[in-house]
Amino acid sequence: MAAMENYKLFLITLFSAAVLGVVSIIFVLRWVLHFKEGLAWDGGSAEFNWHPVLIVCGFIVLQGLAIIVYRLPWSWQYSKLTMKFIHAGLNLVAFIFAVVSMVAVFDYHNAAKIPNMYSLHSWLGLTAVILYGVQLVLGFGMYLIPVTPVSWRAAFMPVHVYSGLLLFASIIAVALMGITEKLIFALTNPKYKDSPPEAIFVNVLGFLLVVFGALILWIATRQSWKRPSEQILHSLHSDRAGEESTKVGPAMSQLSEENDAEATGELRRRSNH
Amino acid sequence: MAAMENYKLFLITLFSAAVLGVVSIIFVLRWVLHFKEGLAWDGGSAEFNWHPVLIVCGFIVLQGLAIIVYRLPWSWQYSKLTMKFIHAGLNLVAFIFAVVSMVAVFDYHNAAKIPNMYSLHSWLGLTAVILYGVQLVLGFGMYLIPVTPVSWRAAFMPVHVYSGLLLFASIIAVALMGITEKLIFALTNPKYKDSPPEAIFVNVLGFLLVVFGALILWIATRQSWKRPSEQILHSLHSDRAGEESTKVGPAMSQLSEENDAEATGELRRRSNH
Repeated sequence: MAAMENYKLFLITLFSAAVLGVVSIIFVLRWVLHFKEGLAWDGGSAEFNWHPVLIVCGFIVLQGLAIIVYRLPWSWQYSKLTMKFIHAGLNLVAFIFAVVSMVAVFDYHNAAKIPNMYSLHSWLGLTAVILYGVQLVLGFGMYLIPVTPVSWRAAFMPVHVYSGLLLFASIIAVALMGITEKLIFALTNPKYKDSPPEAIFVNVLGFLLVVFGALILWIATRQSWKRPSEQILHSLHSDRAGEESTKVGPAMSQLSEENDAEATGELRRRSNH
Repeated sequence: MAAMENYKLFLITLFSAAVLGVVSIIFVLRWVLHFKEGLAWDGGSAEFNWHPVLIVCGFIVLQGLAIIVYRLPWSWQYSKLTMKFIHAGLNLVAFIFAVVSMVAVFDYHNAAKIPNMYSLHSWLGLTAVILYGVQLVLGFGMYLIPVTPVSWRAAFMPVHVYSGLLLFASIIAVALMGITEKLIFALTNPKYKDSPPEAIFVNVLGFLLVVFGALILWIATRQSWKRPSEQILHSLHSDRAGEESTKVGPAMSQLSEENDAEATGELRRRSNH
């Protein structure tokens, strides 16, 4: 019963996050297509517009999905390795979106003779993209190369999780700074402070991104919504019994096996004592 | 041994956070006193300057201290109730700083005939202050009024922790947007994009705030750095043995007693099954 309620809450939270993600993408597209110059790759404002579009679609919404992909109960029938590749693949696509979105800004700046990398937004944004790349390489080396010792995987997992969530939150913060810059620079008559429809519309987009991020962080940090350990999934597979699959969450923390150690970090603590 | 290393790491992280907090305060003071019009309460720019100063000192650095105050091993000799009052008191002072800092902005806007509440920074900032107030009232009602049932305390704890950390991160994000706005508006000749010394200096301040926040979030989310349960602290008190006090961290998760339930949220999971 309580497990079922917990599952219903998971579905509601997931559905809300999905709706917010889709609405955010619609908002950023309407911003550049309706309020601004549209999309093109011509060195002008329409090229700049790829920057917010690619960041919202890729570096925020797609990254959000990558973060919670292990939490989707429909994915638990697939092996952990398959899910790791999906997690890594989604993050890689998000990274490519971010890099292309930066190229669009540099192109636009260079054509318009605007200096690059002067703003706090650019400093933090570039730092986030670089660290995201480092996170990708380290994640690949730690969890997708078979030779990496299990003890390393377990020891690094808390850092991997913390860095991933911190980068996700930071990237949303950097996007909010970017929205602020763009509204101040692009709205001239009427100005941002005169609250024209575009200002209100894009402020709402900023708000949506924050709520989307908050929901993803909530889903990612609920222990009872984690993918059960491989051991439990195997025993369920051979002894499947109706709603049982929704009850495995709370049990997993006691039953994680050592070759599933990166899910808990338990191993390292044990070997330390 | 491993526990000692863990403790050394804690001290290094804490020391780094403290240094960053102090340096951030020095930076914001130097910004308004050296680069800008100083501090006053006269409806002019010098009144506005209280806004960043109070936000950095109170709503960021003091709040950061409030978040990790249970983690300081020197505080473990005091009762949980004493520490709760210190946690609540620090958060209350941070809230007052934030409210006064908003009054300074509204005064300045009204005197200069600048509209209020038009920017995404103002929308998210006001929302954060209101939710911070709600968090204070709920936290007081849940954890400082003796009549609140233990089961409620335990059930609400994951929400309290999540909301607190999310608000802290959001407030830093809002501060970064505020820095962006102020540098664009206040730097006119040379402009922000010309990277005068003030622009570089305040960009660095923004960077420091992000690293400070990242360290506080790291300290706050390490399970092994948590204040041990009251049961363990009592047994240590009656049977004190040298370095033993650094070893309690990993043990606590198995030994939390029910009247210390808000430390773990374990109780709710147990009553659900």
